[in-house]
Amino acid sequence: MGIEDKFNINIGKLKKGKRNLITDVDGVKVGHVTLDEGSIKTGVTAILPHKNNLFQDKVMASSTVINGFGKSIGLVQIEELGNIESPIVMTNTLSVGTGSTALIKYMLKENEDIGKTTSTINCTVVECNDGYLNDIRGLHIKEDHVFEALENADSEFEEGSVGAGTGMSCYQLKGGIGSSSRVIELDNKAYTVGALVLSNCGLKENLIVNGRNLGQEINFKDKCIEKNDRSVADRQITNINNIDEELEKGSIIIIIATDVPLSERQLKRISKRATISLGRTGSYLGNGSGDICIAFTTANKIKHYEKEDLIYIKVINENKIDLVFRAVVESVEESIISSMIHSKDTIGRDDNKRESILNYLGGQI
Amino acid sequence: MGIEDKFNINIGKLKKGKRNLITDVDGVKVGHVTLDEGSIKTGVTAILPHKNNLFQDKVMASSTVINGFGKSIGLVQIEELGNIESPIVMTNTLSVGTGSTALIKYMLKENEDIGKTTSTINCTVVECNDGYLNDIRGLHIKEDHVFEALENADSEFEEGSVGAGTGMSCYQLKGGIGSSSRVIELDNKAYTVGALVLSNCGLKENLIVNGRNLGQEINFKDKCIEKNDRSVADRQITNINNIDEELEKGSIIIIIATDVPLSERQLKRISKRATISLGRTGSYLGNGSGDICIAFTTANKIKHYEKEDLIYIKVINENKIDLVFRAVVESVEESIISSMIHSKDTIGRDDNKRESILNYLGGQI
Amino acid sequence: MGIEDKFNINIGKLKKGKRNLITDVDGVKVGHVTLDEGSIKTGVTAILPHKNNLFQDKVMASSTVINGFGKSIGLVQIEELGNIESPIVMTNTLSVGTGSTALIKYMLKENEDIGKTTSTINCTVVECNDGYLNDIRGLHIKEDHVFEALENADSEFEEGSVGAGTGMSCYQLKGGIGSSSRVIELDNKAYTVGALVLSNCGLKENLIVNGRNLGQEINFKDKCIEKNDRSVADRQITNINNIDEELEKGSIIIIIATDVPLSERQLKRISKRATISLGRTGSYLGNGSGDICIAFTTANKIKHYEKEDLIYIKVINENKIDLVFRAVVESVEESIISSMIHSKDTIGRDDNKRESILNYLGGQI
Amino acid sequence: MGIEDKFNINIGKLKKGKRNLITDVDGVKVGHVTLDEGSIKTGVTAILPHKNNLFQDKVMASSTVINGFGKSIGLVQIEELGNIESPIVMTNTLSVGTGSTALIKYMLKENEDIGKTTSTINCTVVECNDGYLNDIRGLHIKEDHVFEALENADSEFEEGSVGAGTGMSCYQLKGGIGSSSRVIELDNKAYTVGALVLSNCGLKENLIVNGRNLGQEINFKDKCIEKNDRSVADRQITNINNIDEELEKGSIIIIIATDVPLSERQLKRISKRATISLGRTGSYLGNGSGDICIAFTTANKIKHYEKEDLIYIKVINENKIDLVFRAVVESVEESIISSMIHSKDTIGRDDNKRESILNYLGGQI
Repeated sequence: MGIEDKFNINIGKLKKGKRNLITDVDGVKVGHVTLDEGSIKTGVTAILPHKNNLFQDKVMASSTVINGFGKSIGLVQIEELGNIESPIVMTNTLSVGTGSTALIKYMLKENEDIGKTTSTINCTVVECNDGYLNDIRGLHIKEDHVFEALENADSEFEEGSVGAGTGMSCYQLKGGIGSSSRVIELDNKAYTVGALVLSNCGLKENLIVNGRNLGQEINFKDKCIEKNDRSVADRQITNINNIDEELEKGSIIIIIATDVPLSERQLKRISKRATISLGRTGSYLGNGSGDICIAFTTANKIKHYEKEDLIYIKVINENKIDLVFRAVVESVEESIISSMIHSKDTIGRDDNKRESILNYLGGQI
Repeated sequence: MGIEDKFNINIGKLKKGKRNLITDVDGVKVGHVTLDEGSIKTGVTAILPHKNNLFQDKVMASSTVINGFGKSIGLVQIEELGNIESPIVMTNTLSVGTGSTALIKYMLKENEDIGKTTSTINCTVVECNDGYLNDIRGLHIKEDHVFEALENADSEFEEGSVGAGTGMSCYQLKGGIGSSSRVIELDNKAYTVGALVLSNCGLKENLIVNGRNLGQEINFKDKCIEKNDRSVADRQITNINNIDEELEKGSIIIIIATDVPLSERQLKRISKRATISLGRTGSYLGNGSGDICIAFTTANKIKHYEKEDLIYIKVINENKIDLVFRAVVESVEESIISSMIHSKDTIGRDDNKRESILNYLGGQI
Repeated sequence: MGIEDKFNINIGKLKKGKRNLITDVDGVKVGHVTLDEGSIKTGVTAILPHKNNLFQDKVMASSTVINGFGKSIGLVQIEELGNIESPIVMTNTLSVGTGSTALIKYMLKENEDIGKTTSTINCTVVECNDGYLNDIRGLHIKEDHVFEALENADSEFEEGSVGAGTGMSCYQLKGGIGSSSRVIELDNKAYTVGALVLSNCGLKENLIVNGRNLGQEINFKDKCIEKNDRSVADRQITNINNIDEELEKGSIIIIIATDVPLSERQLKRISKRATISLGRTGSYLGNGSGDICIAFTTANKIKHYEKEDLIYIKVINENKIDLVFRAVVESVEESIISSMIHSKDTIGRDDNKRESILNYLGGQI
Repeated sequence: MGIEDKFNINIGKLKKGKRNLITDVDGVKVGHVTLDEGSIKTGVTAILPHKNNLFQDKVMASSTVINGFGKSIGLVQIEELGNIESPIVMTNTLSVGTGSTALIKYMLKENEDIGKTTSTINCTVVECNDGYLNDIRGLHIKEDHVFEALENADSEFEEGSVGAGTGMSCYQLKGGIGSSSRVIELDNKAYTVGALVLSNCGLKENLIVNGRNLGQEINFKDKCIEKNDRSVADRQITNINNIDEELEKGSIIIIIATDVPLSERQLKRISKRATISLGRTGSYLGNGSGDICIAFTTANKIKHYEKEDLIYIKVINENKIDLVFRAVVESVEESIISSMIHSKDTIGRDDNKRESILNYLGGQI
């Protein structure tokens, strides 16, 4: 029984995958490196879309910039060409350059043709700002951490305060890495939609867990306040606009993997649905949040040295895509909540502290 | 006391405007024409951004195509030039042509220069498909209906099954026109954000009202099922993907009006936030739904015959825009719910029926 | 020998199709209705992507809004779903509503399911402003004109001042309908790229024909001025910014048809290349110009009632797409010039006059 | 007399700025670091939008991805927030990571608040692939090179094979850094539009210089072939599609600076016009080309710690924007040609060679 069940986290109605992780999509692997020492609270998470040479066999992909207060690398080419040709590296905002250089070296080593007899390489590095808990100005991520995360990649991986998620905050509680999956059936065959998030967004007062407005309850300092007394709590806030002055900062990176055959246009459509999941956990897409979703499918590989002039790709009948939309919305919402229930209380730089959400879920762990 | 209060609909925390309608934004007016006779269940709703000649004094605007399964007219130029130069007309999908021609005639009459000594006119017509209740193939909207709706425009207007909303369905219950507003304070002055929706989207089983998963309850055929028994209800669904086979069709048009000074880029950002409200009422942006949001501000007028080469416009300090985002998210969510609680049971073409949500809210009306 | 050869118009290097028209793409047909009487100088042009029921068998499509000062209908859904499900109707700006209503009626008649047992229909209507020559305020296009243009559709059709092109101006000379095609080879099989334009953009002084800066020559009032004296001509202009005060108005609609298998993303890429052709004829994408390109392929039909959950589509190996880009750039540039060399001197409303470009091409006709 | 005049390069009609460089826009500075030794042919070019702290006083900006086969960093946030908050660094494709890290360190040093008491920093790094001449796999750019380029920034700077342009190719000849400017008048005051390109795109056979199809002439191996014999040259090409099999690779980065007051939407519109200039020099936006344009204005500074809730910005009357479009089109076209005529013959890695265009311009230097 997963921790979600323990806390009665029961999002949506579709069947979950075997591990309830993004790695339920066959071939996908995830690896972490965690730096957790004093004011250093950061790390790297790497996602490998498949086991083989990604430059040689690219995966079809698309992305949605839900809110563009972010510094990710690689999206321009994903949009133009509709594919991903490197692993995806997640880290903190100020380490994207290091992440990029390391990933380039990794790909150069694997491919002697790049930049010599063929084109260069588009490396995808995504980020959130862990500066509240982490000494982000210290630039503690080194290229070796990236290589290590790539090597650690496996179909089993940890969630919570690990890897790139080590120093992240979510709804002003402790966030980080979360993952989930859903299984659907098309033409009598099972397909999987998996999500992984690096969660670092939201305001505590807005947090919704499983439909329950937990943020309001937490804010009232009483963890078990009755729902019909919510109006009382509201009246306590007296500032001019009647809301917490705190701004929504941070960001969220959402990766969706699937083996459902989808065109780039269809991948774009499913990546956009992650916005709904964000809303369902309480975000209103704050100005300062870099909310980015990348979706890829392992169903159609694009060969770098394709020999045919014309090729076939498999896509979903658009009349059936609602099923994929729903799988995305459910698995992303659950991933966000999962990133929180797998995270522990954390004290970081300058004694900044983020509590675990478990403190507010009835101590049922 | 508004009907929202009666049913304890209490969305968000910001202060509501005087009327809790889009017309709380000074100058905005709304007019309806309702065609409700037998299998004719349709109409026109017109929104006037201000009292004066809109071609001469355009309002700054932007839009977001949340999901583009829609046939609206006028968005291309709104995006390029960042303004609206005609009233906005809402009607059914197959009547957008008639809506456009009528609006063009209305603007030509008011402006003798259009198409002769100056450019032509960009008329904005938006639509949803009311074909479930309405004989939409009959093309019952005539140009006179559009003129009449424009003439009816007032700061007081009805919600629910009126105007373009007459034949609309929302979460498979009766939808239509809904509106709401919020007041915020900037530089010690009050500003208003108002929303109006033409609601026609969603599946019943997904409906969320005020955070409560009402759709699940309705689906269990028992209007008062206890929340902790929800898992029982779910088990009843036995089809392969564990969900209702019904597809999310229909659409939603969302209009946001404000007197907050915003640039076109900022208007685009706020229009995008309507997606969150959709998610909070239960939508997952179904394939067949044309979900479009248009936002305009009355703060900066763009003169058609501007004499100066360089002009000043007033915009919000981006560090304060979260307040507007929140006002948008709250007022759009409330508008959707308001469109439903103002609608009555309706029987349309071929005896197709949509129930009012009031049947499921405890009969408290 | 075509008229292009007579005037030594020799654009690009690829092989032209049999007719050097968009209808060289198998199945594509074009029909005109011309209204040319006194101050009425307008019409309708209809493009049928294939012979069969377009709602039942949609063609894959995408579009680029090169400059969005335009009022076209249907682009929103083309972008979301990547297909076209109706003929494309071209007419004047103020008649898009009539064009839309007529096209809807045409499609309703052909399809009894629309709006009743299935979704509604997305009709594509594109436009330019022929108001300089035409009494556009008179709204002379009636629904019957649209039906007639649809019925007239054939693989042979006229260019120049016909159909929707009757009252159009291009580079302040007479413009209208122009078309061209190119043949390329993929996997040892011939494929066709065809273009059709409704040309109504540009300033005379900027006109470039076949690489020759004809506009400069015309402006100097001497049709045969030597190129190395151009600097003299320039010095004659004495206004403050050294350019003609006249603003670039009008618009251009560009339709690209092909039987090359392309995904929607690839169709978007090729539609964007039309911008290059515009630049090569002298446009700098003036503010007041609605420059829109729609591209479709007949290679993959999308069935409205697709039975399979997953389907195959054929696309081009991206490493070979440059060939299609080049075919697009060449055929669109030639289409623009072709629209002019097929047009005659025209006097329209209020004695407004547009000369034929033939007056400046050495009277060689 | 500039080198353009020597070769009778006479693009457009607007007045040039004093230096005919991007630095004619007051406050803009450009600095280079050149690495030119054996097979190392690369470098860094830095552009400073103004003299002061860019994080504190951001410049309004927008961008257009003309063709997205590129790996630039920073565009996502420029689009969302409409501003640039760091210098712009140009370098080779595989050194964007190093460029980013160096720029981050530079900004951290200058701003102690970043990542600690306020948000992080969006650094803009753009690139082209100089791998034909440069040992790009060697990753020869170090962080110190970036710091040095930033320190070298001045209002006077070199063009051609310098800085990031050291190893670049343009139309298969030697390309690199080129710049130009135009002066226009608004409300009786002079304003400047400046462009700078890092040119690395195009096929030789397509090159157009000043309207003259130089590429065709070069391809015929005779530098002075008569224009009316062009058809002969064409017939020589015998491959199946009648064109050079060589693919258009490389990229071009285009930076537009201006002191004309423009909104982000208007900046986006002007950045899009660079496409026209590309077409005029012979590009058809090849698949493998990363063509990106960033435009910024120094007219409105956006304060990081803005105190007012509402602020005024100055923008251009849209009816006058054609003048800016024209200035952009002219200065970008001239910048591309300028990058070539300032470049010398270059032999790089593996004896790959790029000739200077001067060899084909009559030896007039």
